[in-house]
Amino acid sequence: MFKIGLLGLGVVGTGTAEIIQSEGRHPLLKEIAIQRVGVKNLTKPRQIQFPPGVMTTDLEAIATDPELDIVVELIGGLEPARSLILKAITAGKHVVTANKAVIARYGDEIFAAANAAGVYVLFEAAVGGGIPVIKPLKQSLGVNRITSVIGIVNGTTNYILTQMATAGADFAAVLARAQELGYAEADPTADVDGLDAADKIAILTSLAFQGRVKREEVHCEGIRQVSAADINYAQKLGFGIKLLAISQKTNPKADTLQVRVHPTLVPKEHPLANIHGVNNAILVEGEPLGQVMFFGPGAGAGPTASAVVADILNIVGILVSGGKTKQLDPLLSCSHQHYCTVTPIAELETGFYARFLVRDVPGVIGDLGTSFGKYDVSLSSVVQIGQHDELAEIVVVTHQVREGNFRQALEEIRDLKAIASIPSILRVL
Amino acid sequence: MFKIGLLGLGVVGTGTAEIIQSEGRHPLLKEIAIQRVGVKNLTKPRQIQFPPGVMTTDLEAIATDPELDIVVELIGGLEPARSLILKAITAGKHVVTANKAVIARYGDEIFAAANAAGVYVLFEAAVGGGIPVIKPLKQSLGVNRITSVIGIVNGTTNYILTQMATAGADFAAVLARAQELGYAEADPTADVDGLDAADKIAILTSLAFQGRVKREEVHCEGIRQVSAADINYAQKLGFGIKLLAISQKTNPKADTLQVRVHPTLVPKEHPLANIHGVNNAILVEGEPLGQVMFFGPGAGAGPTASAVVADILNIVGILVSGGKTKQLDPLLSCSHQHYCTVTPIAELETGFYARFLVRDVPGVIGDLGTSFGKYDVSLSSVVQIGQHDELAEIVVVTHQVREGNFRQALEEIRDLKAIASIPSILRVL
Repeated sequence: MFKIGLLGLGVVGTGTAEIIQSEGRHPLLKEIAIQRVGVKNLTKPRQIQFPPGVMTTDLEAIATDPELDIVVELIGGLEPARSLILKAITAGKHVVTANKAVIARYGDEIFAAANAAGVYVLFEAAVGGGIPVIKPLKQSLGVNRITSVIGIVNGTTNYILTQMATAGADFAAVLARAQELGYAEADPTADVDGLDAADKIAILTSLAFQGRVKREEVHCEGIRQVSAADINYAQKLGFGIKLLAISQKTNPKADTLQVRVHPTLVPKEHPLANIHGVNNAILVEGEPLGQVMFFGPGAGAGPTASAVVADILNIVGILVSGGKTKQLDPLLSCSHQHYCTVTPIAELETGFYARFLVRDVPGVIGDLGTSFGKYDVSLSSVVQIGQHDELAEIVVVTHQVREGNFRQALEEIRDLKAIASIPSILRVL
Repeated sequence: MFKIGLLGLGVVGTGTAEIIQSEGRHPLLKEIAIQRVGVKNLTKPRQIQFPPGVMTTDLEAIATDPELDIVVELIGGLEPARSLILKAITAGKHVVTANKAVIARYGDEIFAAANAAGVYVLFEAAVGGGIPVIKPLKQSLGVNRITSVIGIVNGTTNYILTQMATAGADFAAVLARAQELGYAEADPTADVDGLDAADKIAILTSLAFQGRVKREEVHCEGIRQVSAADINYAQKLGFGIKLLAISQKTNPKADTLQVRVHPTLVPKEHPLANIHGVNNAILVEGEPLGQVMFFGPGAGAGPTASAVVADILNIVGILVSGGKTKQLDPLLSCSHQHYCTVTPIAELETGFYARFLVRDVPGVIGDLGTSFGKYDVSLSSVVQIGQHDELAEIVVVTHQVREGNFRQALEEIRDLKAIASIPSILRVL
């Protein structure tokens, strides 16, 4: 019998315990028992019951309990999660966690400790909720030369953008409704500002490109600035707007990457344009594989718990079969020392969508053409799309251009007399 | 160094050898060497070269060569593939295969032998080409109570149906073009009659439902009868037509399944309706997970070789880490003894699409309603959709009905004087 210590009994912790305690799901579940459960508050009413003595508020005692084989960290946040994970590793325990923030920021420290201690740290639930994507990247796609990973990895923002598109409502109204429904947190910052997605793409990058990236090097823009008007115009031009997390090799011969999170116009026929609501999808492209996509529920107690228990069973499967292993299976452990070089956003080659409010349409179109042309920004379309009082609305979509050049052209355009304002600038996939 | 014997050097075999011999793809590739390659013809010109003595026509000598750790079977077909796999197992070698026909038919025998010999038989490439789906089903989704697996698992037929839909061309013309392009074989039977898809759904079923199904119990209909007219009418009604391979639990409390392959009307908003061309996708639904989908290239040398090499590396990862294992990892090995009960197609509950050529429209609509009503077949729509000479074309779509009842009603309708013929009967997802 393998003994599990559970840190945290929130929705995912409860879901995890329910799966482990239920009958007939998987023969290996008979080999494991939840021995300790660490919570903040012992008197809070719970959906699930444990024998006396199992629950405790002393989380550190769980991390270091010599009887436990696996510690499952589901408290989230940076501290004390990071310290507890490191203590469990030092105490020789395998660790399963759903904590994207800790893995994205302290993966280096954590995997160095785990490799030294000869224990596994698995984290399938950290990205994509119930979607198997971490393990496929480690175990199934590793021989490919990956060129890009593009994901919709935050269900809250995808729900908000989907609602904005279908109801034509603005960001603030949809966010309020999402908060009522429990799809967005009271403090929505981590989701709507793209921080959660940035954690996740940092993790996916380190697996896909066999080199880590520093979390602070992930360029990150959220969806607060996306308006219903832009979604509407984008649809008319044949695009949906999605918050994409993108990691892309910029040079096939070197370890240089672009890693970024931002709202993006996605052509309607692209597989990611059809991912709606709280779903997530991760598209991986490589050679010789081509494109594969993993799609499913990106959050929620059940799907996330499914991923957590799968990680537990993976470790149990190895323990059952291998006994004392000589070393870690290199396809399941993580390397950590090597870092990829992240190139500055100014060097990105991408398409842009920009919306201008202008005073004089015929004059301004010539001026836009001149300014963009000066900086090698080639335009794919220029459309007068609406009228606001005295001002006309012009939407420009560019071909692939260097971001730095586009920004320089924009600075010049901002000073043109005919330009009243530039309410939106979005990238195009 | 782990030594590989390769049986077969066709497109997938060549792709596999090229990945193994290339540099810088994966650190573990340094641990393996291709020691023997078995082919039919030693003098045929090859894309890839091996040192003298590596290639041989004696496949059996490879299967039993005491120096080899892993035998990779890529010759396809039933024999001698089955016998060679069994011989390699008996000789204590791990086996990797892309052979869906052998695994679907002889899985029982093969996994019994593998479990007795303590070796792994991995077959990721047998379903979905380069898409990781076998391993996720084994390792990541196992704690879920799976309710259905629905897949587009044959790229050739999906390519043909996609071309028929976009070009409005009929089956025979598109098949001929697909054969020219190499997307369909000279003898297209296994693909267009659904036999390949039936092999694959038999394999997916045995993994998803933890019980095998007999290959001959898979109900199987191909796409030869699908006409451009039906695709056109289906589109007007909001459906695409796809060859689906479906495995569905019919009773949550029992091991009874419906397992079938047939052309199916799929609502346009369904994720599988948007899988086009030679791509494959497998949608798995379970509790508590919800729906996850795996999408990607379902065939081709590169993707299939990617899956084959991933399986090889999985075994090497275990050998590197575990040394001599006590027993097989239960999440990677396969059980084999338990069989699920497949219920007869007459008991299927499904929607139907039927197209009638009729002589007298007003009269026949009443008659159809009466006959269907008599057998509890409830209609969702009845539309007069075209006119052929003297005959009118009527398309009926039903709600979910028992297949047996629908067929009985149809027998009665076939005898109505106003019915000239019933050119198409298709199921609706």
